[in-house]
Amino acid sequence: MLVVGDKAAVVLLSGGLDSATTLAMARKAGFRCYALSFDYGQRHKSELEAAAVVARAGGAHEHRVVALGMGFIGGSALTDRALSVPQAPTVGIPITYVPARNTVFLAVALGWAEVLGTQDLFIGVNAVDYSGYPDCRPEYLAAFEGLANLATKAGVEGARFHVHAPLLHLTKAEIIKAGMELGVDYGLTLSCYAPNETGRPCRVCDACRLRAKGFAEAGVADPALI
Amino acid sequence: MLVVGDKAAVVLLSGGLDSATTLAMARKAGFRCYALSFDYGQRHKSELEAAAVVARAGGAHEHRVVALGMGFIGGSALTDRALSVPQAPTVGIPITYVPARNTVFLAVALGWAEVLGTQDLFIGVNAVDYSGYPDCRPEYLAAFEGLANLATKAGVEGARFHVHAPLLHLTKAEIIKAGMELGVDYGLTLSCYAPNETGRPCRVCDACRLRAKGFAEAGVADPALI
Repeated sequence: MLVVGDKAAVVLLSGGLDSATTLAMARKAGFRCYALSFDYGQRHKSELEAAAVVARAGGAHEHRVVALGMGFIGGSALTDRALSVPQAPTVGIPITYVPARNTVFLAVALGWAEVLGTQDLFIGVNAVDYSGYPDCRPEYLAAFEGLANLATKAGVEGARFHVHAPLLHLTKAEIIKAGMELGVDYGLTLSCYAPNETGRPCRVCDACRLRAKGFAEAGVADPALI
Repeated sequence: MLVVGDKAAVVLLSGGLDSATTLAMARKAGFRCYALSFDYGQRHKSELEAAAVVARAGGAHEHRVVALGMGFIGGSALTDRALSVPQAPTVGIPITYVPARNTVFLAVALGWAEVLGTQDLFIGVNAVDYSGYPDCRPEYLAAFEGLANLATKAGVEGARFHVHAPLLHLTKAEIIKAGMELGVDYGLTLSCYAPNETGRPCRVCDACRLRAKGFAEAGVADPALI
């Protein structure tokens, strides 16, 4: 019998809809969850406040926010004040792509996992209704697992890392339905790239549009907009 | 004809002997060098001061120090004040191993490289006189190149990343000889894991011992000890 919380996992948690659902799925699978968020100079700091609330509501065993001073790198509308967040759909890899972001996030998660003595990482990436980011693809995640096995003391000793991406092949509507079955309170989550000063979503950026489409297709109202 | 500084490269720079030599080799190969250091909670902060001096002396085009708040992870004598830096040789992977360190460093370097529009990264790892770290092995570096090609917008568009590790198969003595030919001033570098308050090396940690052995075998005096 699986004892809930018997095995540890590091769960990347942004405070958005996808990672909140991922946390719920990791808990459901019996993992004691160590939630990890990043302050990487993103313009939407409200997402860190949402992450803390989601971690608590989602039963995370521990939640850490890692400050990451890589804002100087620029190159993304999420970290560079000189670039605007698009308010209309874009083609190809969008300007909200943050260079190497998931690689940095997974690398820090890997370090924490190694110290915790676990090889299980969870990330809420999605290859269906995704935004065109290269580091959200299945082949990328498989490559990271291979790297983790080579990079770590645990891997050298024979352990095998697993990057769980339970949302990978779900549509946004399917994610929402699965999360609601698990009791996720989406009213606590924030998906918007450019929320206003009180943390309310803009409703026009890519992330807001994908979320609205998901709730519409799932046939439920978005509790964060009520 | 190769125009010096025509192509950019991101060079990981710790302020130690190896990375100072790597920077000199990258410059010699004609790269305009963007040096990258990390403040990751290491107990030897003097290395960041050394990195700044080495970057300037070594002709780096730019030098950035990324603050990385992952000290909470612990698990290494370099970041955890509760653990001591060993003063005698150790067997296997030592306690100074920082979980996933090179993966985090290379991931941030990758993000900067992508914004700079280059696919060239330099890292001063070494598989001969190395300290037993898993993320200093050739197979690890090859895996990171593969990951980088999948992780990035540039990679998706067909670019191929190259992690240059020019010291990989050199002994410490060979590294020192090569560096001296390139005019590296090793008096500016700091290798020690546990320098005293004025930044002087302890002479007994793993890093100090490897360095002393290297200078002895190269048949020259270490200018940092004069």
